[in-house]
Amino acid sequence: MSAPTGNIAIDGDRMWATIMETAHIGATPKGGICRLTLTDLDRQVRDWFRASCEAAGCTVAVDDMGNIFARRPGRDPSLPPIAIGSHLDTQPTGGKYDGIIGVLAGLEVLRSLNDQGYETNAPIEVIDWTNEEGSRFAPAMLSSGVFAGVFDTTYAYAREDRDGKRFGEELTRIGYNGSIPCGSHTLGAHFELHIEQGPILEAEAKTIGVVTGVQGMRWYEVHVTGSEGHAGATPMRLRRDALLGASRMVAAISDVARDNAPDAVATVGLLESRPNSRNVVPGSVFFCVDLRHPNDAVVAVMEAAMRQKLASIATDAGLDIAIDCVWDSPAVRFDPDCIESVRRAADLAGYGSRDLVSGAGHDSAYIARVAPTTMVFVPCEKGLSHNEAEHTEKADVIAGANVLLRAVLETDQRLAERVGRAA
Amino acid sequence: MSAPTGNIAIDGDRMWATIMETAHIGATPKGGICRLTLTDLDRQVRDWFRASCEAAGCTVAVDDMGNIFARRPGRDPSLPPIAIGSHLDTQPTGGKYDGIIGVLAGLEVLRSLNDQGYETNAPIEVIDWTNEEGSRFAPAMLSSGVFAGVFDTTYAYAREDRDGKRFGEELTRIGYNGSIPCGSHTLGAHFELHIEQGPILEAEAKTIGVVTGVQGMRWYEVHVTGSEGHAGATPMRLRRDALLGASRMVAAISDVARDNAPDAVATVGLLESRPNSRNVVPGSVFFCVDLRHPNDAVVAVMEAAMRQKLASIATDAGLDIAIDCVWDSPAVRFDPDCIESVRRAADLAGYGSRDLVSGAGHDSAYIARVAPTTMVFVPCEKGLSHNEAEHTEKADVIAGANVLLRAVLETDQRLAERVGRAA
Repeated sequence: MSAPTGNIAIDGDRMWATIMETAHIGATPKGGICRLTLTDLDRQVRDWFRASCEAAGCTVAVDDMGNIFARRPGRDPSLPPIAIGSHLDTQPTGGKYDGIIGVLAGLEVLRSLNDQGYETNAPIEVIDWTNEEGSRFAPAMLSSGVFAGVFDTTYAYAREDRDGKRFGEELTRIGYNGSIPCGSHTLGAHFELHIEQGPILEAEAKTIGVVTGVQGMRWYEVHVTGSEGHAGATPMRLRRDALLGASRMVAAISDVARDNAPDAVATVGLLESRPNSRNVVPGSVFFCVDLRHPNDAVVAVMEAAMRQKLASIATDAGLDIAIDCVWDSPAVRFDPDCIESVRRAADLAGYGSRDLVSGAGHDSAYIARVAPTTMVFVPCEKGLSHNEAEHTEKADVIAGANVLLRAVLETDQRLAERVGRAA
Repeated sequence: MSAPTGNIAIDGDRMWATIMETAHIGATPKGGICRLTLTDLDRQVRDWFRASCEAAGCTVAVDDMGNIFARRPGRDPSLPPIAIGSHLDTQPTGGKYDGIIGVLAGLEVLRSLNDQGYETNAPIEVIDWTNEEGSRFAPAMLSSGVFAGVFDTTYAYAREDRDGKRFGEELTRIGYNGSIPCGSHTLGAHFELHIEQGPILEAEAKTIGVVTGVQGMRWYEVHVTGSEGHAGATPMRLRRDALLGASRMVAAISDVARDNAPDAVATVGLLESRPNSRNVVPGSVFFCVDLRHPNDAVVAVMEAAMRQKLASIATDAGLDIAIDCVWDSPAVRFDPDCIESVRRAADLAGYGSRDLVSGAGHDSAYIARVAPTTMVFVPCEKGLSHNEAEHTEKADVIAGANVLLRAVLETDQRLAERVGRAA
């Protein structure tokens, strides 16, 4: 590959200071951030981002989903931009890194390229995707979804928060309903730096996760119905204990993941028992199941095994059961060339790395439908995210940003060479 | 035995009409009763009960726990009274029968004895025990507990409801803080007619449960602590899933009961998982365990087995666990002579009966400490109680009241003969 990508580096101190500066916008007493999408705090960080990008010489455009595109021109304006995107919104008890480092590392890439007078072939575009978190307006990844054609703006504008405020109205209220139709421009590639949100990199002491895709995932809601009874007066043989049955189901669901080791995960994260009184045999239980695997065919196998096991447990215990699949998100495979550029960038810099399949959803999962895409993961302490205690080491964020920079520049070379326009 | 007890019978229609009449006091739209202890509704039913007993020629006394004693004199005023007691208070969503039939069958016994000019040797005393349910002022069976010396009035008066109102103040407010010290008089025997609150009589098509005692019971609170994690990004092998561990514990606790079949019961009635989000591996679970067996030694064996199984599951799953015993109520054995008089009364009347150990606590469980005591159970539909849908057939309540009457009269004969004063 061409020489520059091996030598160029971002200014780690500047990037870290920028992360800590914007962390004041919506800062929580426990050290996290509460910056829900389309609130005044979201407007404040957007205004800051826009001004910072303009100060870095970028042209800033906003589309009709509020996605912000800050473009640093390249040598060849006919080439589609290479994008670096993530999100600046947070969970209600969010951390300082989830999403944010992806956007601010992009800003640092722009600044570093400026500092070093580096001219890319294609434009570089740093993107703040609107409403990745989905905690104020469900579903998550709404605006990258519109960009990728998964949702339309009519659907998106009608999303309501718990106070009945609509996405479209709030977007206009904060002044970010732009004139560009969402999804109307092509991206040459899309890279996203993100914290892992899992414990693997930390457990294996790796700095960089080379993200090869996003797991397929399905969500289920399960209702188990037995009958209530007095805890003292109902013999074991006459019970139809919904919680006892549900407990056997929780264990069986875990077995489904273990039967598809090592990549399968299965989780019962939410369970509610009724009437939930210490001396009443539970009459009904509601629980949610989350099944994931990088291969959709395996997810289907897992679902079939789960349904068989749960039905069998219900029958044995005299319980009624209803299982509804409420969400089915197919697996995503990222672009092999983009993946390879991340892997090579990590190797060149001497960072320990390993391939990972993202367990969480990300804007990149949707953008992968319309542009060559991949992600760069960095470790986060104890795998913790969506938590004010979320923490990532400064050195790891800097490493991730350098990998991002080099992967972007290599991709810029590669794409320009492909059309015969490399410098 | 002497002849009269075989022929005498209560007036079933009158008793049923009385039950339905008082069911209006605190009636709920769903057909149940909400008549919490020491409320205005409780005062209303107490006033009614007092007036009805006085109309039946009784002397009515109230002790300083609000227990009401309606006495029909016997031939020999030196004999201690034979008591028929239960409670007129209900759960917030209580039924029309739990406790109530025990008191109103007592009233019907008084009326029937009057109708037939039957003179007992000892006085007959019908008792309304205050606050059996314990749902407004914990603990349950508070005033029979004071009568039996388990609690003192200072403790009882200081009990607070959720609004901070004290038992003692509310007792005075409704005018039922009587002058007689609670527990200051002797009972020759104590009988209690009650619904089974379990499904056994119904399942076996028996009319009468001959209650030989009350199970020993222990309550535990269990905290299981693991660590939260992202449901997509946390591999199974790195999880410390508190709900998965707790689920295995729920199943193991059920096994403890089955290992001590057929009389043991073990229930996890309340379970709460945190943070209870569908895509987060649960970090902690709190649950309650209720273990019961008629033999305290077996309860101890069950506890030891449970502790061993739970510790083992926690260790295997990398979870922390804390188990606290929060209540220990020893088993109660009722009086053999009283039990035999109930069994014989059922046989004489031709009612199908079977021996039962009460799974629930009752005023009789405390009174058994200070007087020869037993209970008569009648079936309730599907074993349902503490529920507005609680239902018992009129014929079964009548059968139970007749057994009660005959057992009381036989006991009156027996106790008088014992002191050489039988008529």
